[in-house]
Amino acid sequence: MRNFKVILQYEGTRYQGWQKQESTENTIQGKLEALLSKMAGSKVEVQGSGRTDAGVHAAGQVANFHLDTEKTPAQIMEYMNFYLPEDIAVVAIEEADERFHSRLNAKGKTYCYRVLNTAVPHVFDRRYVHVVEEKLDIEAMRKAAAFLTGTHDFKAFTSNKRSKKSTVRTIDNIKIERIESTFYGIKGSNDEIRFTFSGNGFLYHMVRIMMGTLLEVGMHKIKPEELADILELGLRENAGELVPAKGLTLMEVRYS
Amino acid sequence: MRNFKVILQYEGTRYQGWQKQESTENTIQGKLEALLSKMAGSKVEVQGSGRTDAGVHAAGQVANFHLDTEKTPAQIMEYMNFYLPEDIAVVAIEEADERFHSRLNAKGKTYCYRVLNTAVPHVFDRRYVHVVEEKLDIEAMRKAAAFLTGTHDFKAFTSNKRSKKSTVRTIDNIKIERIESTFYGIKGSNDEIRFTFSGNGFLYHMVRIMMGTLLEVGMHKIKPEELADILELGLRENAGELVPAKGLTLMEVRYS
Repeated sequence: MRNFKVILQYEGTRYQGWQKQESTENTIQGKLEALLSKMAGSKVEVQGSGRTDAGVHAAGQVANFHLDTEKTPAQIMEYMNFYLPEDIAVVAIEEADERFHSRLNAKGKTYCYRVLNTAVPHVFDRRYVHVVEEKLDIEAMRKAAAFLTGTHDFKAFTSNKRSKKSTVRTIDNIKIERIESTFYGIKGSNDEIRFTFSGNGFLYHMVRIMMGTLLEVGMHKIKPEELADILELGLRENAGELVPAKGLTLMEVRYS
Repeated sequence: MRNFKVILQYEGTRYQGWQKQESTENTIQGKLEALLSKMAGSKVEVQGSGRTDAGVHAAGQVANFHLDTEKTPAQIMEYMNFYLPEDIAVVAIEEADERFHSRLNAKGKTYCYRVLNTAVPHVFDRRYVHVVEEKLDIEAMRKAAAFLTGTHDFKAFTSNKRSKKSTVRTIDNIKIERIESTFYGIKGSNDEIRFTFSGNGFLYHMVRIMMGTLLEVGMHKIKPEELADILELGLRENAGELVPAKGLTLMEVRYS
């Protein structure tokens, strides 16, 4: 069987997340498997680098699937893009080593969270940004982010209470940038703050809970130094709220 | 009666254009008038700087309306944004001179047309860009654009055959830029070319027909120098095709 690696983009708005479910056909993995199984004439399983939750987007999700086919990678990509809905796209494809596994071989991931820090409504990126009207203190959020960077037990930053697996992860970098809207914004009205998280892996809801915590720091409800205690104590209730899925995009999955 | 000037953003995808129609409630002007009439308790007319066609977007449409109210401009804006659908927004409001008229006083407008010049599919901006797979010659399009700049009779560049009004307009500038996608693009996959048209006014379909003509120049189907003849002869069939509405956005309306 040949093994194909694909890079996928999708707008998560309409979907119940990545992972296929018995109860709904409306997942990214479900759509891809249905399409490829139809193409192949037999059941095809698609392995993603990880799940994305309902409403989360991807600019560079990686997946792989095994297939007996005489088609070239380009032909498979063309077939997929012809039949996929317009909010899912294959942007790259290659034939991978037989043993390549998009989840098990992943060495790192980058997520981006977009916040529009303004009271002025916005129209064009509304599906991709979370709006926070209260003025955010970027320097305080950067100080707090420094506490999260490095190798820590992120037990306080996951919604998964029962898992017995390790909750230790390494975050290489958290970048917080102010982005001036260059196109659609009426001058000064679209103040975007973009948060970029790179690490070796992320727990269930981890980015969105870190984000909720950073936003509370930005509103001076939590002091940056308190992040050390929140990590140390490992209690979910000490961290911030889960922010909405729509601001989150999986940007990249890295392999060695 | 007080006179209020508003700056509006809207995503045109769902609407039958700006202008209210008997046959549908689904127009921007129709939505605004229904909302303001409800607020005022009597019929309110909303005057736009000009019509935008079905599917065309606006980042800076200007409109005005007269109203007997004790509300402040900020209160009116808040009321409107609370009740407007999420694809229409008031981004600025001010009380204007009693005689201010958004269409009659307009001195100039800027439109932007976005082309994604790639065969790789795209997901995130798909509602706002027109995809052209064939490689476009930017230098040739710039040469052609120079012929369109200035004061000309644009009869060949409008779909309105019967109007007896003047078809002379002045285009101050046509800017053609290559934009590297800075966020969602997988490297090299999202080659955007952005066309910005500034002028004292535009005829029905004029920007979209100029765009279709420039694209044919970019594909070497029309030579840049031929633009002089197309203008001179004034025949619609010599100009290029009407490009899709979704790539077009009204960016700004200028007043003295």
